[in-house]
Amino acid sequence: MADTATPGTPRTPDSTRRSERSRRAIYEAALSLVGEAGYARTTIEGIAARAGVGKQTIYRWWPSKAAVLLEAFVDLGEQAAEAAGGGDGGYEFPDTGDLAADLKAVLRATVDELVDPKYEAPSRALTAAGIVDPALGAEFVEKLLEPSLQLYVGRLRAAQEAGDVREGIDPRVAVELLVGPLSHRWLLRTLPLTHAYADALVDCALGGLAPRR
Amino acid sequence: MADTATPGTPRTPDSTRRSERSRRAIYEAALSLVGEAGYARTTIEGIAARAGVGKQTIYRWWPSKAAVLLEAFVDLGEQAAEAAGGGDGGYEFPDTGDLAADLKAVLRATVDELVDPKYEAPSRALTAAGIVDPALGAEFVEKLLEPSLQLYVGRLRAAQEAGDVREGIDPRVAVELLVGPLSHRWLLRTLPLTHAYADALVDCALGGLAPRR
Repeated sequence: MADTATPGTPRTPDSTRRSERSRRAIYEAALSLVGEAGYARTTIEGIAARAGVGKQTIYRWWPSKAAVLLEAFVDLGEQAAEAAGGGDGGYEFPDTGDLAADLKAVLRATVDELVDPKYEAPSRALTAAGIVDPALGAEFVEKLLEPSLQLYVGRLRAAQEAGDVREGIDPRVAVELLVGPLSHRWLLRTLPLTHAYADALVDCALGGLAPRR
Repeated sequence: MADTATPGTPRTPDSTRRSERSRRAIYEAALSLVGEAGYARTTIEGIAARAGVGKQTIYRWWPSKAAVLLEAFVDLGEQAAEAAGGGDGGYEFPDTGDLAADLKAVLRATVDELVDPKYEAPSRALTAAGIVDPALGAEFVEKLLEPSLQLYVGRLRAAQEAGDVREGIDPRVAVELLVGPLSHRWLLRTLPLTHAYADALVDCALGGLAPRR
């Protein structure tokens, strides 16, 4: 991350620390602004003013406000993974050998993230903007969504090898059976998004709706 | 519909026909404008100008642009149901006795509607606006989404009584297992939204991901 964020900056400890501080301030400013004003009305100038940096600092590191915002969310994910003990910043999907328990743990944690008052507004604003702007949507999927879906795919593939997922099931479709309903309930606010719902989804998806004859 | 759309208008055949023509023109204008300019930049004035009516005509029938748009989508749904032979405008969920076949037919038809170039842009614009505006989102759910989800619930409940859905499954959760992934793929454009995907979803959801032991 530091390599792309501070190209050409001399790597003395002080300047690295200053860069790191500016980078975090810019992320915080971008997230709070888009949460308050929406994506369309968030500007690089506004982010710079709130972060207390010059706008050239932002332009030096990122090509667009979309890039700043997407990286702010990637950074949030990395921080969450570090807090959860993921080590080098890479998030690992739990594999205790109990597929249902692992999926419930991850979906419950996802529920907690989605309803976190600090990040719900910017996350909704960015998602809504991507829904009507195909280029932004494609970046959102490529940088944020698909990498996280691939973690599920990896776990489901391991489960399939262990005989816990039926042969013939496409893990990439299976992951949508879990993540799709969660996202639908969150985005459209149809009914409360709770841990009990996360558990019910996992049970329904694994057990299937049809009776076992 | 006519009773709420033309309160106080004398019911001579001519004025009814004129009202009906204006109402349809207003819906068409609202859908095309929101598709082109987005929800935030669509105004009652703009809708009136494009529909060729005075803005007082719109204010007489609807309290807000949200109400116009939501009713435009309700009307679209009714037209689609009439075209599909639903008779009095009420859409009926197919019940051939074959749950998988009925679900696949409805999900395939939903795919066709979602990717219809005429309505995809306004539908995305309205959904995205509801994601960041809780009051609009609640109206969207109440008037458009939940009534259509309840049609699935009815079919799934009948299937449960017929022994084709496991006891203990909540039909309202089950419907999200089908509709959630479809909506996720459509809104976020992760992968192609096809009939084959609709079929795979139904098979995965009914059969379950876990092996039948």
